[in-house]
Amino acid sequence: MTGPESAPLAPGATVGVLGAGQLGRMLAVAAARMGLRMVLFDPAPDPPAAHLAPVVTAAWDDERALAAFAARADVATLEFENAPLHAVETVAAHIPVRPGPRALAVAQDRVTEKRFLREAGVETAPFAAVDDAESLRAALAEIGAPAVLKTRRLGYDGKGQARIAAPEEAASALAAMKGAPAILEGWAPFARELSVIVARGADGSVACYDPGENLHENGVLRRTTVPAAVDAETSARARATARRIVEALDYVGVMGVELFHMADGRLLANEIAPRVHNTGHWTIEACAVDQFAQHLRAVCGWPLGDPVRHADAAMENLLGEEAADWVRIAREPGTALHLYGKSESRPGRKMGHLTRLSPRR
Amino acid sequence: MTGPESAPLAPGATVGVLGAGQLGRMLAVAAARMGLRMVLFDPAPDPPAAHLAPVVTAAWDDERALAAFAARADVATLEFENAPLHAVETVAAHIPVRPGPRALAVAQDRVTEKRFLREAGVETAPFAAVDDAESLRAALAEIGAPAVLKTRRLGYDGKGQARIAAPEEAASALAAMKGAPAILEGWAPFARELSVIVARGADGSVACYDPGENLHENGVLRRTTVPAAVDAETSARARATARRIVEALDYVGVMGVELFHMADGRLLANEIAPRVHNTGHWTIEACAVDQFAQHLRAVCGWPLGDPVRHADAAMENLLGEEAADWVRIAREPGTALHLYGKSESRPGRKMGHLTRLSPRR
Repeated sequence: MTGPESAPLAPGATVGVLGAGQLGRMLAVAAARMGLRMVLFDPAPDPPAAHLAPVVTAAWDDERALAAFAARADVATLEFENAPLHAVETVAAHIPVRPGPRALAVAQDRVTEKRFLREAGVETAPFAAVDDAESLRAALAEIGAPAVLKTRRLGYDGKGQARIAAPEEAASALAAMKGAPAILEGWAPFARELSVIVARGADGSVACYDPGENLHENGVLRRTTVPAAVDAETSARARATARRIVEALDYVGVMGVELFHMADGRLLANEIAPRVHNTGHWTIEACAVDQFAQHLRAVCGWPLGDPVRHADAAMENLLGEEAADWVRIAREPGTALHLYGKSESRPGRKMGHLTRLSPRR
Repeated sequence: MTGPESAPLAPGATVGVLGAGQLGRMLAVAAARMGLRMVLFDPAPDPPAAHLAPVVTAAWDDERALAAFAARADVATLEFENAPLHAVETVAAHIPVRPGPRALAVAQDRVTEKRFLREAGVETAPFAAVDDAESLRAALAEIGAPAVLKTRRLGYDGKGQARIAAPEEAASALAAMKGAPAILEGWAPFARELSVIVARGADGSVACYDPGENLHENGVLRRTTVPAAVDAETSARARATARRIVEALDYVGVMGVELFHMADGRLLANEIAPRVHNTGHWTIEACAVDQFAQHLRAVCGWPLGDPVRHADAAMENLLGEEAADWVRIAREPGTALHLYGKSESRPGRKMGHLTRLSPRR
């Protein structure tokens, strides 16, 4: 998929996106600015991106709809990593999909992901695959408590996770997995969580935005602040880690890489997201080429954009009813307000975000 | 139309836009970010904004289509000042139009515009209405040569203009007007042309972006650079002039104000555009709230955004075949590339623009 032979898609080309949520919507905005067209695929009725671009509404196993979607696009990508692999492969039989099925296969399974990271020379917390009480006992004996038990697949925003503070909590944690294959991860008492938005072009070039620092609440991202409160050496090491990951995967597109920065200075990779990422929304206002434009550049074989940042930024998610406060937020100095056009508000649902800009320190 | 009584339109509301060119397209992008919906009206088939939002395709005198357009929107605005007043009034009979017919009437006729500016206490170059050879002779006697003869209406990008270097060129200049009512304007040997993007909210609040400096080539905008090379006093005076204009018009929305900065320090108002403006495109990357979001905030009765600028910027239009150079431009450091999705390239046609960012000096 990579290599100098792939000619860039010209403006006017159509990018297909699997998934039409807020990330698809923000990709559609970037596409419009770049003179690209877009078509999306989503099983849900009236998804956020549907206000901006045509959406094929069909189930993930609807082969005919997937083929029709592919027929309308020149290249395809994804706005979320849990698109069923089979659907991605169906599309990939017709048009290039970037990133490709391998990156998805790695990112969809926490054990495969952690093994890939170790093989790529990237440090992670200790982990072990857990299928039953027996393997959980063995894993706990090896890794120790506290630890976290997570489903291997389909977890996001803290869902499908159970903390094990002491071995006697093992049984209830296992029950919380509801029989799904799991992974036990050693508890990493990190000083801070960093995330690096990295892009790799079809020509193999790599561009990294400045690492941001994340704050989660109840397993959901609350805030990303850029720059992170780390020294230049740590920042460079975080970027080098992200580069190592995309190169090892022969990846094309934008990826979000979450890293734990430990008190002793180590960086442990926690999770990779093979797509544009909530922790990269600050790039919309703070960079000439934001993560959405950057992703489309990579997917279309364009030269990557300069990831230079010209302001400090703090991005904050608006969850559920918090978005109802839009008038007050609109009044804040130096603040951009984003609303995703979701008609239904639910507690904890990502309804929008704001980004506060301040001069570079 | 103004006043504290008007409640802001909530997210999810639909903004109607008369005109669906690149400015309508950029408004649609801003609307998508703000959680607003959009419908546009344009006589042309497949205009740039049609890739992003529904467009009612009909002639300006199609009353039924205008009413149908109005029925789909909660408020209306314009992307170009030459929408026929009658069409605007038809829409205004159904829903609020911001800015209103008065601002349009003023901006559509260069003589009315200049008279309004003078009455508002804003200095302009000397001018006189010209209807025939007789009135041109009188005007030239009063104003002197060199001067510029322009059609009163429908001129843009240097079209409908003829320079009169000496009185003997009067006849050919008048012939170039093709019988249209005209205005003779004294030649203003300005040191630089400034433009101020100013917004006035429905509550009467005013927000001004930093003045930019324009370079025109062949009557078409080539480049806008921000900040303009003027001292703080001049910059403040330019902003005060823009404020005076929007207040005198009881204006709601974004307006582009072009000013000549004379060698002796005077600022002469050249032209006002009652809409988002090509010379404000730099705000997309350099400000948290760009001119398009700002305009929609005003039109929807939201609080105006903070116009603070966090980078220096140079915006350059891509005319005709210049846009074919997109791969090279995409490689430039610190540069955002915008393409408008126009299928047909013609010499001098605005096909896109680029904005180069650099740290604030």
